[in-house]
Amino acid sequence: MTPEEFRAAAHDLVDWIADRRAAVEARPVRPDLEPGDLVSSMPTSPPPGGDAAASVLADLESVVAPAVTEVQHPMHFGWFPSNASLSSILGDFASSGLASLGISWESSPALTEVETVVLDWLRQLTGLSHEWSGVIQDTASTACLVALLSARERATDHSQAGSGLVGFGKQLHVYTTAEAHSSVRKSALLAGFAADDIRHIDVDPWTRDMKADHLADAMAADVAAGGVPAAVVASLGSTGATAFDPLPEIVTIAAEYEAWVHVDAAMAGSAMLLPEQRELFSGVEHADSLSWNPHKWMGTILDLSVLYLRDPDHLIRVMSTNPSYLRSTSGGEATQYRDWGIPLGRRFRSLKLWYQLRIDGPEAIRARLRRDLDNAQWFAAEIASRPGWEVVAPVRLQTVCVRHTPSHIDATNSAGVSEHNLGWVRSLNQSGDAFLSPSLLDDVWMARVSIGVEATERHHLERLLELMEEHAG
Amino acid sequence: MTPEEFRAAAHDLVDWIADRRAAVEARPVRPDLEPGDLVSSMPTSPPPGGDAAASVLADLESVVAPAVTEVQHPMHFGWFPSNASLSSILGDFASSGLASLGISWESSPALTEVETVVLDWLRQLTGLSHEWSGVIQDTASTACLVALLSARERATDHSQAGSGLVGFGKQLHVYTTAEAHSSVRKSALLAGFAADDIRHIDVDPWTRDMKADHLADAMAADVAAGGVPAAVVASLGSTGATAFDPLPEIVTIAAEYEAWVHVDAAMAGSAMLLPEQRELFSGVEHADSLSWNPHKWMGTILDLSVLYLRDPDHLIRVMSTNPSYLRSTSGGEATQYRDWGIPLGRRFRSLKLWYQLRIDGPEAIRARLRRDLDNAQWFAAEIASRPGWEVVAPVRLQTVCVRHTPSHIDATNSAGVSEHNLGWVRSLNQSGDAFLSPSLLDDVWMARVSIGVEATERHHLERLLELMEEHAG
Repeated sequence: MTPEEFRAAAHDLVDWIADRRAAVEARPVRPDLEPGDLVSSMPTSPPPGGDAAASVLADLESVVAPAVTEVQHPMHFGWFPSNASLSSILGDFASSGLASLGISWESSPALTEVETVVLDWLRQLTGLSHEWSGVIQDTASTACLVALLSARERATDHSQAGSGLVGFGKQLHVYTTAEAHSSVRKSALLAGFAADDIRHIDVDPWTRDMKADHLADAMAADVAAGGVPAAVVASLGSTGATAFDPLPEIVTIAAEYEAWVHVDAAMAGSAMLLPEQRELFSGVEHADSLSWNPHKWMGTILDLSVLYLRDPDHLIRVMSTNPSYLRSTSGGEATQYRDWGIPLGRRFRSLKLWYQLRIDGPEAIRARLRRDLDNAQWFAAEIASRPGWEVVAPVRLQTVCVRHTPSHIDATNSAGVSEHNLGWVRSLNQSGDAFLSPSLLDDVWMARVSIGVEATERHHLERLLELMEEHAG
Repeated sequence: MTPEEFRAAAHDLVDWIADRRAAVEARPVRPDLEPGDLVSSMPTSPPPGGDAAASVLADLESVVAPAVTEVQHPMHFGWFPSNASLSSILGDFASSGLASLGISWESSPALTEVETVVLDWLRQLTGLSHEWSGVIQDTASTACLVALLSARERATDHSQAGSGLVGFGKQLHVYTTAEAHSSVRKSALLAGFAADDIRHIDVDPWTRDMKADHLADAMAADVAAGGVPAAVVASLGSTGATAFDPLPEIVTIAAEYEAWVHVDAAMAGSAMLLPEQRELFSGVEHADSLSWNPHKWMGTILDLSVLYLRDPDHLIRVMSTNPSYLRSTSGGEATQYRDWGIPLGRRFRSLKLWYQLRIDGPEAIRARLRRDLDNAQWFAAEIASRPGWEVVAPVRLQTVCVRHTPSHIDATNSAGVSEHNLGWVRSLNQSGDAFLSPSLLDDVWMARVSIGVEATERHHLERLLELMEEHAG
């Protein structure tokens, strides 16, 4: 494809994208499809010659796009917001257009240094001290894995350089709660911690926050049994019920055992931009690592997760390689982000964050986050005032956990309540008018109303309430 | 940013990108910068309000772009090609524009199913049987880590679900060669294999291919000592000298010990598209996993690495999680690619591959790869015919390893030869006229001339020869 062919096709695509975003509300939130429907509608083998770009765009429009769940739709309240601000999409275009290669400072000085600058901007915006250094990871799952690998090596005095975990020979423990994101357990297992050695500390039955005294007891017991407390993963703003583990106590307890503290604030981290919410994150200054996802509520298009560390030198020791063909031929000391994570080759992801912070600006982003917090409080109050409806977890930020118990079902009949709630959520989701995530809380199904799509305004929540009454009624 | 503001700014950006690609040859291949230069030229804190998109584009032009190494430049012969075909950039735009969320089939059926379809197309194009299933990873580094985690769990009967490596208690061995990519050792260490337990099998002194009989001996010795051979990582087309480990023998030896065979063909995998080169990859049908990077020579913009497996069910067992909020509410069995790798959230990467295969078409891609192979043979013959110059490794594909020994330096003076070769390569690279990677071969510096940028034609190689004579003379 020549630059002129590209120019023409890209202009067409830009118009298609702008039109599509402008009309997002006219489409159903989710497609009515069964697994395999799309596979069976596409050719089973590739075209031998080339197709015209216009014909590919036509297929994008008629085959691909209708099979996308519209997470930018104002009536999307599922999972967590996966906002893709148009400013960040523009930055993603710039990244694709530059087609830069991030394998070393030298392979693209801009890719390295814009990341350094923009992550320092974000550090300042979220009130972290100069002690912290940031790096972009694809997701919070990977960030947690990277943190736990660092923890494993710190706890074993860098056993990977010698005889490894088998040689180390003691059980290594990770502490978290059952409320932690599924990726925490997955990361721990992948990092070589054993299922038997992962401790799920009890939580407060209403807030779902970790009980710090139980953490202290568990660590003491494990040490008494000859084990080594290697890491705590504290959730700030958990996926289910927005639990905030008590970080000030956790960092103090962990320090006694030199256990690594990783803070998973994947969703909630965006709220660190708001000074009035910053108290929720107190204690973070004493953690070892923090990850959160600008690609969620803040709205930098996926994938852009940030990992901040207080001691990147330790991480670099765990991750570094220095093959001859990648040694810098320049004189100075350069940051090599390949040694701050798993992949060698990196995309120019910081551009999408740079574009968003430059074009939207932090104040407009903050105003939007505050709008969502207000909407969540309003929505929770509405739910609480309606017969049969209840808010089943504290509304710490923008997620409201709701459950409906109709008059004909006894509230103590868990199976009946579960079935009813799964039923109305599925019926609502299938309508395409709105989308909520059904989720389990204390083994009973409820619905998470996750507010925060960029396009969602108060009147969308009013409409959601009507739809919920209709489908649950 | 509104859709109309986005539309206007994106049209400007598209023109800038098309102009920039059309004029790539007019720019130096690499910027003349020292580490920190860009950081010190950018604002130290973010702008509180928003900037106009035009001002961000102006900074992209004047501050960011000049600090990018031009890996799309026809005189770029460094590392490996990191081609970004304009068709794949268009697909990347489509991905950004759809702003889809890949955390489950349901969160974007299209994201899942287009990946299934396009990876099956690529399977057919590379001559793999129906036994193989593919998934997109960000890089070959991550793909190798995923493969070695699968190997670890297969070798320990899924120890992560119980007492882990410490409970398993035996040393687990990984076999590779010193020629393997640096990410192989890194992946092995991160996956929990110990440095002491990684075996670097001897290689042929000219081809640098693994000696299969040494592999058999090493495995037998490790088993005799109570260890467990868990995995072999075979390089097909190594980074330094394009070594091809003898896969037919390796898979037979590994099978005796039920060791996992992962094939790292990060660069060379593109050559699997050429039937006349397919013999280089024989034995691959009996491996357990294969990864290669369409984002290198084939030209699907970074990051797009593919991992093919013969037994994805095992991988899924190692990687899967099934939290309630991600359970599908639809009836059928859907592929959940989150269980095929580390990250939960995934970008719609398959669109860039779909665009490239649709618009460029496999035949045009194959013609370009053949052009590069011809150019490499021509270039190697030219080098071999010039006094003082030698080709120091076999030219298996598109990389030519060269060394210059001027008449005033004795060829047995390794330090002198090293210094001279590092010298002319640095001088050439600093000129901005071309870029080569200096690399160590048998502890003596040489230059890798990696041919295969989409824009590189024969006359660019003629010019390179002139420049090499000039800087080495």
